[in-house]
Amino acid sequence: MGCLKVSSKSSPASVAGAIAGMVKDGVSVEIQAVGAGAVNQAVKAIAISRGFLSPVGIEIACVPSFADIVIDGEYRTAIRFAVEPRYTRGVPVPATGGEAETAASDSTL
Amino acid sequence: MGCLKVSSKSSPASVAGAIAGMVKDGVSVEIQAVGAGAVNQAVKAIAISRGFLSPVGIEIACVPSFADIVIDGEYRTAIRFAVEPRYTRGVPVPATGGEAETAASDSTL
Repeated sequence: MGCLKVSSKSSPASVAGAIAGMVKDGVSVEIQAVGAGAVNQAVKAIAISRGFLSPVGIEIACVPSFADIVIDGEYRTAIRFAVEPRYTRGVPVPATGGEAETAASDSTL
Repeated sequence: MGCLKVSSKSSPASVAGAIAGMVKDGVSVEIQAVGAGAVNQAVKAIAISRGFLSPVGIEIACVPSFADIVIDGEYRTAIRFAVEPRYTRGVPVPATGGEAETAASDSTL
């Protein structure tokens, strides 16, 4: 399990590269963001990483959840995104429960 | 296909209720947000709606993508979240490919 901590100053493209690399390696990815700016960068990173993974037949989806964390002794609520591969070139990836689909993503960057 | 337009002032709980209702009805949901504050509210809404849907055996995941839109004559980049049910009490939910949908709503929350 790889945990990427994203801030409002993180580069979405760099985070996207990290996500894509880990997903390709079969590592499950979790992204943590605190604050609106950080959440926005995290979402952009996930959207960009779809463009990196689509050509190799991997589609991803994310599942957001809340997490209570402590930063510098203060309680904050973080958003955690569990990034999950969904299927590879029509072959269902185990544990997604979904049906096979042909990859057809078209994200505008 | 229901499209929910979320702003930075949207109540995540209200949006979550709308998402949960549509998913329960088998309507595929798309959420559109422009700007970091709106994206943050949208993500919180999706996380909250998971809590509404989990007791009835529905798990959801979201797929973020970019969309070029025009607001008041200006080009903006929006984030769109496709919300997808993943499984219902172990039974795979048919892929939300746009078939057999009757309801079509377009509401701003």
